[in-house]
Amino acid sequence: MNFQNVMDVISEFPEVYRYIVKVLFILISATLVIKVGAGVIDRVFAVRFKRMPVDESRMRTLAGLLKSILRYTVYFIAIVVMLETFGVKTSSIIAAAGIGGLAIGFGAQSLVKDVISGFFIIFEDYFQIGDYVETAGVSGIVEEMGLRTTKLRDFGGQLHIIPNGEITRVTNHSRGNLRAMVNVRVSYEEDLDRVIKVLEEVAEEIRQKRDDIVEGPTVLGVSDFGPSEAVITIWARTLPMQQWSVERELRKAIKERFDREGIEIPYPRMVVVDKKSKEAKD
Amino acid sequence: MNFQNVMDVISEFPEVYRYIVKVLFILISATLVIKVGAGVIDRVFAVRFKRMPVDESRMRTLAGLLKSILRYTVYFIAIVVMLETFGVKTSSIIAAAGIGGLAIGFGAQSLVKDVISGFFIIFEDYFQIGDYVETAGVSGIVEEMGLRTTKLRDFGGQLHIIPNGEITRVTNHSRGNLRAMVNVRVSYEEDLDRVIKVLEEVAEEIRQKRDDIVEGPTVLGVSDFGPSEAVITIWARTLPMQQWSVERELRKAIKERFDREGIEIPYPRMVVVDKKSKEAKD
Amino acid sequence: MNFQNVMDVISEFPEVYRYIVKVLFILISATLVIKVGAGVIDRVFAVRFKRMPVDESRMRTLAGLLKSILRYTVYFIAIVVMLETFGVKTSSIIAAAGIGGLAIGFGAQSLVKDVISGFFIIFEDYFQIGDYVETAGVSGIVEEMGLRTTKLRDFGGQLHIIPNGEITRVTNHSRGNLRAMVNVRVSYEEDLDRVIKVLEEVAEEIRQKRDDIVEGPTVLGVSDFGPSEAVITIWARTLPMQQWSVERELRKAIKERFDREGIEIPYPRMVVVDKKSKEAKD
Amino acid sequence: MNFQNVMDVISEFPEVYRYIVKVLFILISATLVIKVGAGVIDRVFAVRFKRMPVDESRMRTLAGLLKSILRYTVYFIAIVVMLETFGVKTSSIIAAAGIGGLAIGFGAQSLVKDVISGFFIIFEDYFQIGDYVETAGVSGIVEEMGLRTTKLRDFGGQLHIIPNGEITRVTNHSRGNLRAMVNVRVSYEEDLDRVIKVLEEVAEEIRQKRDDIVEGPTVLGVSDFGPSEAVITIWARTLPMQQWSVERELRKAIKERFDREGIEIPYPRMVVVDKKSKEAKD
Amino acid sequence: MNFQNVMDVISEFPEVYRYIVKVLFILISATLVIKVGAGVIDRVFAVRFKRMPVDESRMRTLAGLLKSILRYTVYFIAIVVMLETFGVKTSSIIAAAGIGGLAIGFGAQSLVKDVISGFFIIFEDYFQIGDYVETAGVSGIVEEMGLRTTKLRDFGGQLHIIPNGEITRVTNHSRGNLRAMVNVRVSYEEDLDRVIKVLEEVAEEIRQKRDDIVEGPTVLGVSDFGPSEAVITIWARTLPMQQWSVERELRKAIKERFDREGIEIPYPRMVVVDKKSKEAKD
Amino acid sequence: MNFQNVMDVISEFPEVYRYIVKVLFILISATLVIKVGAGVIDRVFAVRFKRMPVDESRMRTLAGLLKSILRYTVYFIAIVVMLETFGVKTSSIIAAAGIGGLAIGFGAQSLVKDVISGFFIIFEDYFQIGDYVETAGVSGIVEEMGLRTTKLRDFGGQLHIIPNGEITRVTNHSRGNLRAMVNVRVSYEEDLDRVIKVLEEVAEEIRQKRDDIVEGPTVLGVSDFGPSEAVITIWARTLPMQQWSVERELRKAIKERFDREGIEIPYPRMVVVDKKSKEAKD
Amino acid sequence: MNFQNVMDVISEFPEVYRYIVKVLFILISATLVIKVGAGVIDRVFAVRFKRMPVDESRMRTLAGLLKSILRYTVYFIAIVVMLETFGVKTSSIIAAAGIGGLAIGFGAQSLVKDVISGFFIIFEDYFQIGDYVETAGVSGIVEEMGLRTTKLRDFGGQLHIIPNGEITRVTNHSRGNLRAMVNVRVSYEEDLDRVIKVLEEVAEEIRQKRDDIVEGPTVLGVSDFGPSEAVITIWARTLPMQQWSVERELRKAIKERFDREGIEIPYPRMVVVDKKSKEAKD
Repeated sequence: MNFQNVMDVISEFPEVYRYIVKVLFILISATLVIKVGAGVIDRVFAVRFKRMPVDESRMRTLAGLLKSILRYTVYFIAIVVMLETFGVKTSSIIAAAGIGGLAIGFGAQSLVKDVISGFFIIFEDYFQIGDYVETAGVSGIVEEMGLRTTKLRDFGGQLHIIPNGEITRVTNHSRGNLRAMVNVRVSYEEDLDRVIKVLEEVAEEIRQKRDDIVEGPTVLGVSDFGPSEAVITIWARTLPMQQWSVERELRKAIKERFDREGIEIPYPRMVVVDKKSKEAKD
Repeated sequence: MNFQNVMDVISEFPEVYRYIVKVLFILISATLVIKVGAGVIDRVFAVRFKRMPVDESRMRTLAGLLKSILRYTVYFIAIVVMLETFGVKTSSIIAAAGIGGLAIGFGAQSLVKDVISGFFIIFEDYFQIGDYVETAGVSGIVEEMGLRTTKLRDFGGQLHIIPNGEITRVTNHSRGNLRAMVNVRVSYEEDLDRVIKVLEEVAEEIRQKRDDIVEGPTVLGVSDFGPSEAVITIWARTLPMQQWSVERELRKAIKERFDREGIEIPYPRMVVVDKKSKEAKD
Repeated sequence: MNFQNVMDVISEFPEVYRYIVKVLFILISATLVIKVGAGVIDRVFAVRFKRMPVDESRMRTLAGLLKSILRYTVYFIAIVVMLETFGVKTSSIIAAAGIGGLAIGFGAQSLVKDVISGFFIIFEDYFQIGDYVETAGVSGIVEEMGLRTTKLRDFGGQLHIIPNGEITRVTNHSRGNLRAMVNVRVSYEEDLDRVIKVLEEVAEEIRQKRDDIVEGPTVLGVSDFGPSEAVITIWARTLPMQQWSVERELRKAIKERFDREGIEIPYPRMVVVDKKSKEAKD
Repeated sequence: MNFQNVMDVISEFPEVYRYIVKVLFILISATLVIKVGAGVIDRVFAVRFKRMPVDESRMRTLAGLLKSILRYTVYFIAIVVMLETFGVKTSSIIAAAGIGGLAIGFGAQSLVKDVISGFFIIFEDYFQIGDYVETAGVSGIVEEMGLRTTKLRDFGGQLHIIPNGEITRVTNHSRGNLRAMVNVRVSYEEDLDRVIKVLEEVAEEIRQKRDDIVEGPTVLGVSDFGPSEAVITIWARTLPMQQWSVERELRKAIKERFDREGIEIPYPRMVVVDKKSKEAKD
Repeated sequence: MNFQNVMDVISEFPEVYRYIVKVLFILISATLVIKVGAGVIDRVFAVRFKRMPVDESRMRTLAGLLKSILRYTVYFIAIVVMLETFGVKTSSIIAAAGIGGLAIGFGAQSLVKDVISGFFIIFEDYFQIGDYVETAGVSGIVEEMGLRTTKLRDFGGQLHIIPNGEITRVTNHSRGNLRAMVNVRVSYEEDLDRVIKVLEEVAEEIRQKRDDIVEGPTVLGVSDFGPSEAVITIWARTLPMQQWSVERELRKAIKERFDREGIEIPYPRMVVVDKKSKEAKD
Repeated sequence: MNFQNVMDVISEFPEVYRYIVKVLFILISATLVIKVGAGVIDRVFAVRFKRMPVDESRMRTLAGLLKSILRYTVYFIAIVVMLETFGVKTSSIIAAAGIGGLAIGFGAQSLVKDVISGFFIIFEDYFQIGDYVETAGVSGIVEEMGLRTTKLRDFGGQLHIIPNGEITRVTNHSRGNLRAMVNVRVSYEEDLDRVIKVLEEVAEEIRQKRDDIVEGPTVLGVSDFGPSEAVITIWARTLPMQQWSVERELRKAIKERFDREGIEIPYPRMVVVDKKSKEAKD
Repeated sequence: MNFQNVMDVISEFPEVYRYIVKVLFILISATLVIKVGAGVIDRVFAVRFKRMPVDESRMRTLAGLLKSILRYTVYFIAIVVMLETFGVKTSSIIAAAGIGGLAIGFGAQSLVKDVISGFFIIFEDYFQIGDYVETAGVSGIVEEMGLRTTKLRDFGGQLHIIPNGEITRVTNHSRGNLRAMVNVRVSYEEDLDRVIKVLEEVAEEIRQKRDDIVEGPTVLGVSDFGPSEAVITIWARTLPMQQWSVERELRKAIKERFDREGIEIPYPRMVVVDKKSKEAKD
C-alpha cells in the first residue's frame, strides 16, 4: 500500500513531463503556423504582383498588416490552449474574445467583400484599365484597379474612388461599337418624304467621310409626333467613344443642308385664339 | 503489484499504436476526401459545360480555385482532428477559425447567391441568348449567360455586366408578340367620326403591307381629352422587336393621309383675352 | 490477475462487434432515410401536380435536385457519425460544414422564401391564371403560377417573371367591378346646370346601350376649379377590364353631344394685359 | 471471479430493460405531445372562428398544415432522442437539421410576423370591416381581415391584398369627422371684403341644406397670394366620406352665386411688354 | 459478494428518492415562478395604469396574454428539465424549440421595439396628448398614447395609428412659439423704400390688434429677385397654432393697404419681341 | 465492508456542507455584484452630470431603471447557478432566457446605439448648445443635448427631437464664416463691363457699412447664360447666421443703384414670330 | 482501510494548495494582460500620432477609454475563471454577459467600422487635407481627418462632420485637371461656320491670357438642337478648382465678341398662329 502511494507520486512525474512536452509542442506549432502563414501571404502577394497594376509599397504594407494580425491571433490561441492544458477553464475568455472578434469581424466584413469582389472583377474581366465604364452611380475611364478599390477618372477630371464591394452592375462602354443617334425635328408643314430623302443624302455623305462609323447612319423614320413638330431619327453605330463626335458632325451637316434646302427646324408653335375680355365687350 | 505497473506500461503501447492508427486513418481520409471532392467538382463542371455557353478556360480556373479551397479546408480540419487526438484542447482554434470563416462566408455569401440564382435562371428558362430583356434597371439583348454573371448588350452598344444575384424580376420582350401603339392628336374642331374612319383605312392599309403584324392595327377610340386636342389611339400586336418599326410606319402613313384629307395635327392652343393695363386705361 | 488481463482482451472483442453493429445500424438508417425522404419528395410533388398548372418535366428535374441534396447530406452525416463512433473528434468537421452550410443556407434563403410565398399565394387565392394583377412594380395578366415564380403578360406583350418572394402586396383588377371615370372640362362661361343636364342625358344613353356597365354612369358634380375651366366628373362601375372601353365610348358621346349643343371644351386661357415697354414710351 | 463476469452479464440485462423502458417512454411522450398539440391548435382556431370574419374551410386547411408540421417535428426529435439513447452521437444530425431549420425559419419569419401583426390589428382595433383606410401605400374599404392578410377594395374597384406584416402605419378615414376644403381664386381687382361676405352667405346656405356637415363651412380668409389671384379658403367638417360631396356642392353653389354677383374666377394672367425686334427697328 | 449486489440494489433506492425529490422540487419551482411572474406582470401594469391614458380592458387582455406566454414557457422548461433528470438527452428538443423560439422572437421583435420606444417617448417627454406633432411621415394632434401605438388626428380628420417603434424623429409644433411668414411680391417698378415703409405700418397695426403675436411682424427686406418681381418678406413669431391665422390676417391687411396706396401685386410679366415670319417677309 | 458504507454516509456530510458553503458564496457574491454595480452606475452618472446639460431628475430615473435591470439579472443568474449546484440541468432555462434576452437585446439595440452615438457627439465636439446644425433631414439651433436624444429648435419654431443614433452626418453652420451669394440677372443688351463696375461699387459700399462681413463682397463674373439674361454673381463671407441679412441688404442696394443707373432687371423674354393660320390664308 | 481514508484527507490538501496556486496564477495573468494591453494601446496611439493630424488630448482620452474597457473585461473574465475553478457552474453568467456584450457589440459595430474605414482612407490615400472632395452626399475641402470622423468645409462655409464608415465612394476634385465647359446658344438663323470660327478665335485669346488652362479651350461643335437655338460647346481642361473662373472668363469674352460681331444669343422663340375665336367669326 505504501508502495502504491509512492507509485502515485512517481506517476505524477510523467504528467509534469507530459505538460512540458505539450507546452513545447504548442510553442513549436505556433511558430510553425506563423512562419508558414507569413510565407503563404508573401507568395499570394507575389503572384498578385505580376497580374495587377497595384503600387508595390502599398502591397508590402498590407502584407505586413496581415502578418501582424496572423501573429497576434496565433499568440492568443497558443496562450488559451496552454491555459486549458494546465486545467484553467477558458470558456469565458473564448466568449469575450469571440464577441470582440465578431465586432471586428462585422467591421472587417466589407473589407473581405471588397477583396472578393475585386478578385471577380479581374477574373471575370469586367473591365480593363482605359475602359470607359459606368458603375455604382458614377462613370469614367478606369485608371487603377486595386485589391480593394477601383479608381475612375470622370470626363470632368474628377477622380472617383470606389470600394470594389460597391461595384455590382457594371456598364462597359468600351466593349463594342456604340450608337450615335440624332433626333431631327421638322415642322408638320414639311413634306416628310422629301425631308427623309435629304437626310439620307446627308447620312451617305457622312458615311463616306468618316471611317469610325461601323454601321452607316440610317434614317429610321418618324419616331414621334411632338407638340409642334414631327421627329425623325437618324441612327449609326461607331467605334467606342466616337459616338458624340459623329453626332456633332451629323448635326452640323444636317443644319447646313437644311439651310440650303430651305427646310426649317421649327420653333415651338402655338395657335392663339383672340377673345375680347368682358370689359372690352361692355 | 509490480506486475500491474508493468502491465500499465504495456497497456500504454497499444495506445501509441492506436494513435498511429488514428493518424494514418485521418491522413488517408483527408486524401480520400480531397480526391473525391476534386472529382465531384470536375464532374459538376463537365456536366455544366454541355449546357451552358460559358468560356472553358474561365471554367477551369474556377474549378481550380474551388479545389484549392477544398484542399486547404481539409488540411486544416485534419490538423485540428490530430491535435484533438493527441489531447490538445482546440476549442479556441475552432473559435478563431469560425470567426474568420464567418467573415469570409459573409463576404462569399453574394457569390453563393449569384450561383444559385444563375442555376434557377437557366433551370426556369427566364431568358435565352439573343432575347431582349429588362432586369435590374438595365435592358438589352442577352449576350452571355455565365455561372455568376449575365451580360446584356444595350441598344446603345454598351455592355451591361450583371451578377446573377441582382436578377430578380425579369421582363422578357422576346416571349410573345409585342404591342405597337400610336397616339394621334386631333383638334376639337374635327369631326371625330370622320377622323376615326380615315384612321381605320390607314390601319387596314398597313395591315396589308406588313406581315410582321400579328393582330391588326385597331383604332381604339378617344383615349383622352388633352388641353388642345382629342387623342385617338391606334393599337397593334407585332412580332417581337418589330413594334417600333410598325409604329414609325403607322405615323408616317397617318401623317401623309391626314395631309391629303386636310386633317390637321393641332399645335398647342391658347385663348388669349386682351385687357388693357391700368396705365393704358388712364 | 493474469486472468483479468485476458478478460480485458476478451472484453475488447464485444467492443469490436459493437462497432460493427453500430456501423451496420448507421448504414441501414442512412439508406432508410434516403428511401423514405425520396418517397416523401415524390409524394409531395405528386400531390402538387394535381393542383398547380406547372410544367411536369420541370417538376421532375426539381424533385431530382432535392433528392440529390438529401442523399449527399445523409452521406455526410453518416460518415461523421461513424467517425465519432470510432472516437475521432469531429467538432472541427462539423464547424467547417456548418459554416459552409450557413453560407449555402443564406444563399438558398430566398429560394425557401419564394416557395413558402408561392404556397400562400395559391392557398390564400391571391389571384388565378387569367386575372389582371399589379404587384412588385409590374402589372399584367397572370400566365403561369409556379412553385418559385409567377409569370405575368403585360398589355405591351412583355413577359414579366417574378420570384414569388417578391410578391407581397397584390392588386387584383379581376375581383370585382371596376370604375370608369371621365373628367369633362367646361369653360367658366357655361351654365353649369345646363351642362350637367346634358351630361346626364349622355350618361343615360350609354347606360342603355352597353350591358357591361354595372352601376350607371353618374354625373358627380363640379370636382375641381381648374385654371381655365370647371371640371365635371362622370363615374360608372363596369365589368372587369371594360372600364377603358366604357370611358372611350363616354368621351366620344360627350364630344358629339357637346358639338351639337354648342358646348365648348375650352382651350387653356390667358388674360393678357398689354403694357408699353420703356423704349416704346420714350 | 467467474461469478463477477456472470454478474456483469446479468447487470447488462437491466440496461437492456432500461433501453426498452426509455424507448417506450419516448414513443408515448411523442404520441402525447402530438395529441395535446393538435388539441391546442384546434382550440386556438375554434376560439378565433368566433371573432374573425375568416373563411372556415381555409382555416381548417391551415390547422391541418400546422398539425403536419408538428407531427413531423416530433417524429424527428423522437428518432434523434432514441439514437442518443442507444449511444449514437447525433450532434452532426442536429447541426444539419438546425441549418435546414434555420433556413426554413428565416423563410417562415415573415409568416410569423404577419400573424402577430394580424393579432395586434384586431386587438388594438386599428380598423374594422367597412372602414376606409390608407396603409402600405394603398387605400380602400376593408373587405376582409384575415389571419395573414387584409383585403382592401379601392374606389377604382381593384382588390388590394396586403400581408398583415406590411401594415404598420394606418390612416383610418372612418374614425371621426373629415374635412371638406375648397380654395376659391379671385382676381386681385376684386374687393376682398365683399367676396368674403358673399362666400359666407353661400356657406350659411349650404350649412342649412345639408345635415351631414358637423362643423359649418367657415371662410378662413386669404390663404395665399397666387401669381394671378388671391386664394380664399372655405373649410367644413363633415360626416366620414361625405367630404367630397360637400366640396362639390360648395363649388357649384359658389360658381352660381359668383355668376349672379359678377365675381369672376380669374384666368391666368400675364402682363405683356411689347418690344420691337432688332430687324424691325432697322 | 452477494451482499455487494444487495447493497447496489439498496443504493438504487436513494436514487429513486432523489428523483422524486427532484421532480417535486421542479414542480414547486415552476409553480412559484408562474405565481411570482404573474404578480410582477400585474404590478407593472398597475403602475402603468396611473401614468398612461390607456384603455383598462385592453390592458387586462394584454396582461392575460403575457401570463399565458409565461405559463406555457415554464411548463415547457419544467418538462425538459424532468426529462434531463431522468437521463433522456434533450439537446434535439431544445434545438427544435430554439429554432421555433427564434422564429417567434424575430416576429415579436418589432413588438418589443414598440414597447421600449413607447417607454422612452413618455420618459423623455417627446410629446403629450393635445400636442401637434409631425413624425413618421404624418402629422396631427396626439389623441392617444399607448403601450404599443400612438394615435394622431390629422387636420383632415383622419386618424393615424403609428406603432411606437416607427417614431424616431419627432417634430413637436406645440413646444414654443411658431413663425408666421408672408412673402409679398412687388413689381420692379415700385419704389422699394416706400413699399417697405407701408409694410412696416401694416405690421405695426397687426401687432397692436392681436395679442397672440409674441414677436412683432418685422419686415425683413428683399429676400429674392423673382422673374417678374422683387419679393419682400414679413416675419412674426406667434403662439402655437396661431401662425396661419396671423398670416391670413397679414395678407388681407396688406392687400387692402396696397389697394389704397396704389401698390400693385404684379402679374407674371413677359417682354415680347415681335418678328415677322419668313412667309410674311416673302 | 459495513464500515465502508458508514464512511460513505459520512462522506456525504461534507458534500452537504459544501452545498451550504456554495449557496452562501453565491448569495454573498450576488449581493456584492449588485452593490458594486449600483455604485458604478451612480458614479458614471455623477461624472456625467458635470459635463452634460441634462435634466437631473430624468438622470436619476434612468439610473434607477438600470439598477433594476442589474438586480433582476443578478437574481436570475444566482438562481440558475444554485439550481446547477444542486444538479438540476438548466440548459433549457438558459436557452429560454437567452431567446428572451436576445429579443429584448435586439429591441434595446437602438437604445445602446443612441447612447454610444451621444457619447461620441460630445467627445468629438460635433456641435454645442446654440449652434445651428443640419442633421438627419432637419435643421435648427441645438437646444438640448441628452444621453439619448438631441433637441433642435427650427427657425419655424418647431422642436425637433432626434435620437442620437439617427445623427450620423452633421452639418454645422456655426463653425466658421458663411457665404452670402446674390445672383443678379441683367439683360443681354446691357454692357457687361459697365454692370460689373456698378456692382463692384455697390459691393464696396456695403463692405464699408457692415462689419459682420469677413471677406468683402466680390463680383465673381458671368456665372450663367440664362434664357433671357446673363447672370452675374456677387459673393461674400460673413459671420455665422449674418449671411441672409447681408444678402438682403446687397439686393436692396443693387436694386436702388440699378434704378439710378437705368440698368434694368429683365423680365422673361420671348421672340414671337407671327404666322397666319390656314383659315386666315384662305 | 483506515489508512486509505487518512490518505484521502491528506490528498485533499494538495487540492487546496492547487486552488491557491491557480488563483495566484489567474491574478498574475490578469495583471499581466492589463499591463501588456495598456502598453500595446499606448504604442499604437503613439505610432498613429506621427502620421495623423489628430488632436492629441482627444487621443489621450480615447486611449484611456480603451484601457478602461480592457481592465473591466479582464476583471470580469478573471472572476468567472476563479468561480469555475472553485466548481461554480458559470454558463448562465457567461450567457448573460454574452447577450449584454452582443448588445453593446452591435451598438459599437459602427464605431469599429468607422475606425477600419478611417484606416483605409489614409492607407489608400483617398484624399489629403486641403483636397476638394465629394462623398456621402456632401462636398467640401477636407479640413481634418480623424480616427473616426472626417471634417469637410463646404464652399458655403458650413462644416460637415462625417463618420468615416459613411465614406464609401469618394470623388476627389484635386487629383488631376478639371474640365471647364461653356454651352453657347445661337439662333438657327446664324451661319454656324462663322459662329464656330469666332468662338475659336475667342478660345485662342483666352488660352494665351491664362496659364492655368492645361488643355486649350476647344470648340467641340453642335452638341444639341434646342427648341429655339443650336447649342455649341466649348471645352477646356484647367488646373484644379480654376474651372469655374475659366468658365466665367470664357462667357464674358464670348458675350463681348458676339456683341462686336453682331451675333445674338437668342431669346426663347415661339411661332404664333392667330385664329379668330368662334364669337369673333359670328
